Amino acid sequence: MSAVARPHVVVVGGGFAGLWATRALARDKVRVTLVDRRNHHLFQPLLYQVATAGLSAPDIAAPLRHILRRQRNVEVRLGEVTGIDTDARRLALADGDDVAYDYLVVASGATHAYFGHDDWAPHAPGLKSLDDALAIRRRVLLAFERAEAATDPAERAAWLDFAVVGGGPTGVELAGTLAEIARHTLKDEFRHIDPAGARVRLIEAGPRVLASFPESLSARAQRQLEKLGVEVATGRAVEAIDAGGYVLGGERVAARTVLWAAGVAASPLGALLDAPRDRAGRVQVESDLSVPGDPDVFVAGDLASVQQDDGTPVPGVAPAAKQMGAHVARAIRARIAGSATPAFRYTDMGNLATIGRMAAVVDVHGLRLSGLLAWWFWLCVHVMFLIGFRNRLIVLINWAWAYWSYQRHARIILGGKAGAGNRE
Amino acid sequence: MSAVARPHVVVVGGGFAGLWATRALARDKVRVTLVDRRNHHLFQPLLYQVATAGLSAPDIAAPLRHILRRQRNVEVRLGEVTGIDTDARRLALADGDDVAYDYLVVASGATHAYFGHDDWAPHAPGLKSLDDALAIRRRVLLAFERAEAATDPAERAAWLDFAVVGGGPTGVELAGTLAEIARHTLKDEFRHIDPAGARVRLIEAGPRVLASFPESLSARAQRQLEKLGVEVATGRAVEAIDAGGYVLGGERVAARTVLWAAGVAASPLGALLDAPRDRAGRVQVESDLSVPGDPDVFVAGDLASVQQDDGTPVPGVAPAAKQMGAHVARAIRARIAGSATPAFRYTDMGNLATIGRMAAVVDVHGLRLSGLLAWWFWLCVHVMFLIGFRNRLIVLINWAWAYWSYQRHARIILGGKAGAGNRE
Repeated sequence: MSAVARPHVVVVGGGFAGLWATRALARDKVRVTLVDRRNHHLFQPLLYQVATAGLSAPDIAAPLRHILRRQRNVEVRLGEVTGIDTDARRLALADGDDVAYDYLVVASGATHAYFGHDDWAPHAPGLKSLDDALAIRRRVLLAFERAEAATDPAERAAWLDFAVVGGGPTGVELAGTLAEIARHTLKDEFRHIDPAGARVRLIEAGPRVLASFPESLSARAQRQLEKLGVEVATGRAVEAIDAGGYVLGGERVAARTVLWAAGVAASPLGALLDAPRDRAGRVQVESDLSVPGDPDVFVAGDLASVQQDDGTPVPGVAPAAKQMGAHVARAIRARIAGSATPAFRYTDMGNLATIGRMAAVVDVHGLRLSGLLAWWFWLCVHVMFLIGFRNRLIVLINWAWAYWSYQRHARIILGGKAGAGNRE
Repeated sequence: MSAVARPHVVVVGGGFAGLWATRALARDKVRVTLVDRRNHHLFQPLLYQVATAGLSAPDIAAPLRHILRRQRNVEVRLGEVTGIDTDARRLALADGDDVAYDYLVVASGATHAYFGHDDWAPHAPGLKSLDDALAIRRRVLLAFERAEAATDPAERAAWLDFAVVGGGPTGVELAGTLAEIARHTLKDEFRHIDPAGARVRLIEAGPRVLASFPESLSARAQRQLEKLGVEVATGRAVEAIDAGGYVLGGERVAARTVLWAAGVAASPLGALLDAPRDRAGRVQVESDLSVPGDPDVFVAGDLASVQQDDGTPVPGVAPAAKQMGAHVARAIRARIAGSATPAFRYTDMGNLATIGRMAAVVDVHGLRLSGLLAWWFWLCVHVMFLIGFRNRLIVLINWAWAYWSYQRHARIILGGKAGAGNRE
């Protein structure tokens, strides 16, 4: 059992797909190298809580090294992949090193996309990483500070006007939580403004919010959002975004805080593979998740474009990424054994989305819930899946505290001097 | 009781001195404006725990607005003071506004100083704010990552060589905790390096560490540090620091991580007052803490240079800042009433310093403790004084967890792409 003879599996990305692939190979006679440009696995489904100051960044992240410390056939490499040479079977890293592989798993996920409007990016930040979340937190908290300090009523109103673009789960979570912050969390704290008078608008180009849910749940989600104080605008796309606001339906709205939850594009690493890609840049993989023409290279998670049996795409959710990760491990095992690789089959675990305090929608195997019961269901599922016992406990305490006090403990502005001169 | 007629007290700085002054004025017929360039009060004594990944930033900070929300005679203004006009009784803020005052309290604290070697600053970051702490955390965690990825043995050794300059309480805390991280926390996580082989050196120019303690406790602190794995070098000052390391006693040491805990300089706002200052830039105030020749302007906290009755300076510790803050409130009350202002008297509450896991020194009214008992004493005092019930609970849970598991939950690298190309 010489270590040298073991095939080398390189996994790029420590998200759900990459981490689950790595863990599934724990008992195989392979060497695994997990490459990520960040040192932590991130529990993406709770990222909006960091952005809205309900949780601290370390509450929803764990160092990849720590998670994998006891899996002796794995090494973790902090590094950014800049090139993939599938002929030579090597990855190039930004620090100049390169890494040879026998089997490659590319699971570098997705980023946000502005549909060709990259100039909107600085004015409407998206939410994919912890740094994104802290930047959004800073922007939201500063908006109330600027409103308090403003002397011009129009300027004050613009600082109290919030828009979230995109009515999917992330947009709904952000809008619902922003409304709670304005109406409850900041109560009594300001002397010149009433934060409860802030406008929070959720803008969805399609006909309804949470389009991946049944229509009846979309309607209920919209009613719950409105009850929380969110103005929901559907059926119209934003036409422009700049530092001063946005244009919707030809009308210009002066809003200093616009958040982007509308578009998802695959990680640019997909373009380094010689493979067909869909419009969002996802790699169109074979049924076993390998790259067409290169059976030793696999793509898993949000970067993979996979169809279900009924022709609908496998959704970009955490359970799908975990299933793909585990599947890739099985496929590699089959390749090493010289047997045929199995086809990936997605098991739909249902669909959950939270909206705000005691409001959520759940669609699990025909069971449709909304409101308080759905919220409890959502809470249990998310805490259960959080990695690491400590994180679960801390998150539960934070939530219990937030629930009773309406408080959000992480309302700390980090980065730069918050009170510095620029009024951006 | 017209609000307009009430004197306006402006407090600059929401640290211990400024916040305690503000709170002490809660029942007075004054209007108070608290100006800070950050939105939070920071529990400075635990800042090293954020730098060493034991606590999250929000665990030791609370929004000033939230702390003061029920004190109706206060408004909080996020802003950076750029000018003080004591003739016109106005402050200028960086955002262009100005604020008129009847009484002014300047409590903007201290920053770190490099004794004329400002070129050392980028290579040896200091620890004063949460952003500093996150930058140090990032640097320390990345050093182990770079060592793991290094192929050249000399480069690897340089990444595993840590120096802390300054043997006061902050330097001792940082060095002790770094040694614990290297020896215990990172155990089993790396494949190419042994983190326990890292060198952690504490460099103090004076003859002993913790010079503000009795000699016997300094000696015990040094023994405890050495037991934790810290190499203590006293009696020599660092002669140079650059990106590759430092020079001590003419010998060049290749160390990629140097932390600065040596020098303190008063906040630059002191220079905006027309008042005598000591060598560290602290304002030499009258016995009632007012500025000589301007009885309506007070200085409190680390920015004030005050002598005790025996001629020794009041130390720059949290209890002294709180006492000064409360005193300034009394002095303003006396000025408004037209009576004589009292002289400030410092009450020495004793001296505590933590060293690491189960190691601390305590010197309280002749009671001298070291080791485990001192550590428990330190822990109770610090948790007790943490602002806000939630923070205390969370900090206790984090510590209990860290104690049993040797883990540090906040080992998350934030800011930039950790794996990007530069090997700085």
